[in-house]
Amino acid sequence: MRIVVPAGGIGGARFLRGLRAALGTDAATESNQATENQITVIGNTGDDITLFGLRICPDLDTVMYTLGGGINEEQGWGRTDESFTVKEELAAYGMKPTWFGLGDRDTATHIVRAQMIAAGYPLSAITTALCDRWQPGVRLMPMTDDQVETHVVVNDGDGRRAIHFQEWWIRHRAALPAEEIISLGAEKAKPAPGVIRAIRNADAVIIPPSNPVVSVGSILNIEGIREAMAAKTVVGVSPIIGDAPVRGMADACLDAIGVRTSAGAVAEHLGSDLLDGWLVDEADAGTEVDGIEVRSRPLYMSGPEATEALARAAVDLAAELSERRAGQR
Amino acid sequence: MRIVVPAGGIGGARFLRGLRAALGTDAATESNQATENQITVIGNTGDDITLFGLRICPDLDTVMYTLGGGINEEQGWGRTDESFTVKEELAAYGMKPTWFGLGDRDTATHIVRAQMIAAGYPLSAITTALCDRWQPGVRLMPMTDDQVETHVVVNDGDGRRAIHFQEWWIRHRAALPAEEIISLGAEKAKPAPGVIRAIRNADAVIIPPSNPVVSVGSILNIEGIREAMAAKTVVGVSPIIGDAPVRGMADACLDAIGVRTSAGAVAEHLGSDLLDGWLVDEADAGTEVDGIEVRSRPLYMSGPEATEALARAAVDLAAELSERRAGQR
Repeated sequence: MRIVVPAGGIGGARFLRGLRAALGTDAATESNQATENQITVIGNTGDDITLFGLRICPDLDTVMYTLGGGINEEQGWGRTDESFTVKEELAAYGMKPTWFGLGDRDTATHIVRAQMIAAGYPLSAITTALCDRWQPGVRLMPMTDDQVETHVVVNDGDGRRAIHFQEWWIRHRAALPAEEIISLGAEKAKPAPGVIRAIRNADAVIIPPSNPVVSVGSILNIEGIREAMAAKTVVGVSPIIGDAPVRGMADACLDAIGVRTSAGAVAEHLGSDLLDGWLVDEADAGTEVDGIEVRSRPLYMSGPEATEALARAAVDLAAELSERRAGQR
Repeated sequence: MRIVVPAGGIGGARFLRGLRAALGTDAATESNQATENQITVIGNTGDDITLFGLRICPDLDTVMYTLGGGINEEQGWGRTDESFTVKEELAAYGMKPTWFGLGDRDTATHIVRAQMIAAGYPLSAITTALCDRWQPGVRLMPMTDDQVETHVVVNDGDGRRAIHFQEWWIRHRAALPAEEIISLGAEKAKPAPGVIRAIRNADAVIIPPSNPVVSVGSILNIEGIREAMAAKTVVGVSPIIGDAPVRGMADACLDAIGVRTSAGAVAEHLGSDLLDGWLVDEADAGTEVDGIEVRSRPLYMSGPEATEALARAAVDLAAELSERRAGQR
C-alpha cells in the first residue's frame, strides 16, 4: 500500500513510527523496494526559522530524527545525548534569541543545510541528502521548496504585532492570545517536486495527530495539495481527545481560527470534501460528522504497540473506505 | 608608548600577553585610556579558510582567545574546555574535510562571524564586535578586509597542485615538501581601515616570534604595510633558535622560499630596510646582520615572567633605537 502522510513534528513523527511498523517498511525495504508498501511524508515547513544564519526545519528534523533513531525520546524533539555548548557561546556573544533550544548535534544538521542552501540546493534535495544518513524508512519531502513561515498576530503590552510562530510557541509557550495565524508566503508557494505525484500515486492519505492548524493546515494551504488529497481516500487521526490536545498546545491555535477544541470540530474544520474517515478516542465515541465515517478507538500513543495498533486501524479504515468508494463508482 | 604588532597565531599571541604585561595595558585601560601605552595588533588572515560555510580566522581567534582568557593553554590554539560534538556530527553526515579541529565553542565564534559577513559587515568590524566579548586589552584588526588565502604548491603522488595552507599545515603537518607558497588575493588586497594610520601613529613596531613567511610575511605583503612600518623603528624577535623554529614548522615554510632556518637568515630575509633591531637567543649570540642591531637574550617564552621580560627587552631595544634614529636626524 502506498500511503502519503502530511506531518508536523512530534505527534506526526511518533505516528509515523507506528505506521512504518504496521506496514513493515524500514530503511532496508525503502531502498530495495522488497515490499510494496511505501510511505511518503509531506513535512510541514511553516515552522521553519532562520536563526544565527542557519535555516532550521524543526518538523522535518523531528520526523527524520525520530524515524532515524536520533530523537530525544522523552522530549520528543531534538537529538538524544544532546549538549548546548554552541547555544551558550552564542549567548556569551550577546546573540539573540536565547529562547531557542539549539543543541550542538542539531546545529551540525543546520550547518549542513545552510551550506547546501548557499550552494543553491532546494530544501527537498537537502532533505534527501540529510536522510541519506538517517535512513528513516520513508520518503521525506518538504511540502514546498519555497519559504513559507507561520506568523502569529498577538496583542500584548507591546502592541499588536506579528511574531514568528516559534517565538510564540517556544518563548511565550502559546500563552499570548493569538488574534490571527498567518502563513507568510503560502499564497505564492509551489509544492516541492514529487509532492503532487506522490499523492496521485498513493492508495490513501493518512493525516496523523499533528496540529491541525499550523502543521496539517500549513501543508493543505500549499497550492494543489488539498485538491490532490481530496481525490484520494483520506483518513485522519484526531489530535484532540475530549476538549484538549493529546499533546502540545493545538487548542491555542484552534482558538485563533475560531474552531472549538473537540475531535468533531476539527474534522468539520478539515472538511468532508477532504476527509473520508476520522479516528477519535474512545472518550469521544458517539462523535458524528456529516459525510465523514467516524470510528472510536484508543488514541494515546503510549508505546510502540499502541502506536502501531493505531496506525493499523487508520490503514484498515482507509482500505475499507477505498473499497467502498470503488464500489460506489 | 604606542606599539604596533604584526602577529600570527600561537607565538604572536603568547608574546602579546607578555607585551601587554610589560606595558601595563589591559582590558580596563584599553577602554578608559588611563595609560598612554597602547598595543595595536595587525592580525594575519592568510590562514583563513571557509569550511562548512563558516569563515574561520585561526590567527585572529588565537590572539583573541589568548588575550581574552579563553585559549586552551596546553595546545596554544582553540578554546579551553572544548568539545567536538559538531565536528563528529558533520563527519557523520559525510561532510569534508574531517581533519580540521573544529570545536563546539569555537564553532559559535564562526557562526557569529558568518552571520555578520552575510549581513555585510567587513572582517575588521566583525573582529571588533567579537572582541567586545573577549576584551583582549589590545586593538585587534585584520591585516585586510579582503580575502587573502595562503596556498601551498605541493607535488606528491597526486601530481603538482596548490592546496590551502591549512590542509598542508594540519592534514599533512607540513611534511609534503612545499615548492611554492602563494598568497592568493594579496596583490589586490587593501589594508583594513585603521591599519596604516595605526602604524603611522606608532612609536615602534615589534615583530613577535611568529612564522616569518606565512604570518609576518603575509602581513608585509599587503599594499602599504611594509612601507609604513619601514618608516618606523622596527624590532623583531627571532622565531628561530639555532637551526629550528621555537615551535611549529616554520622551517618547512622557509625551505619553500629558499631561506635558511637560522636567526640571522630570517633577519636578512625580513631586510635591513624594515628591521632596526633583532633579538636572537643566547644560543645564537654573535649573530651579525648588516644594518640591523642584533642582541641576544633568552627567547623561550617558558612562562609569564619570561615572556614579559622578553617583551620588555624588545620594547627597550625599540626605545633605544628610536632615540638613536632621532639623534641621527
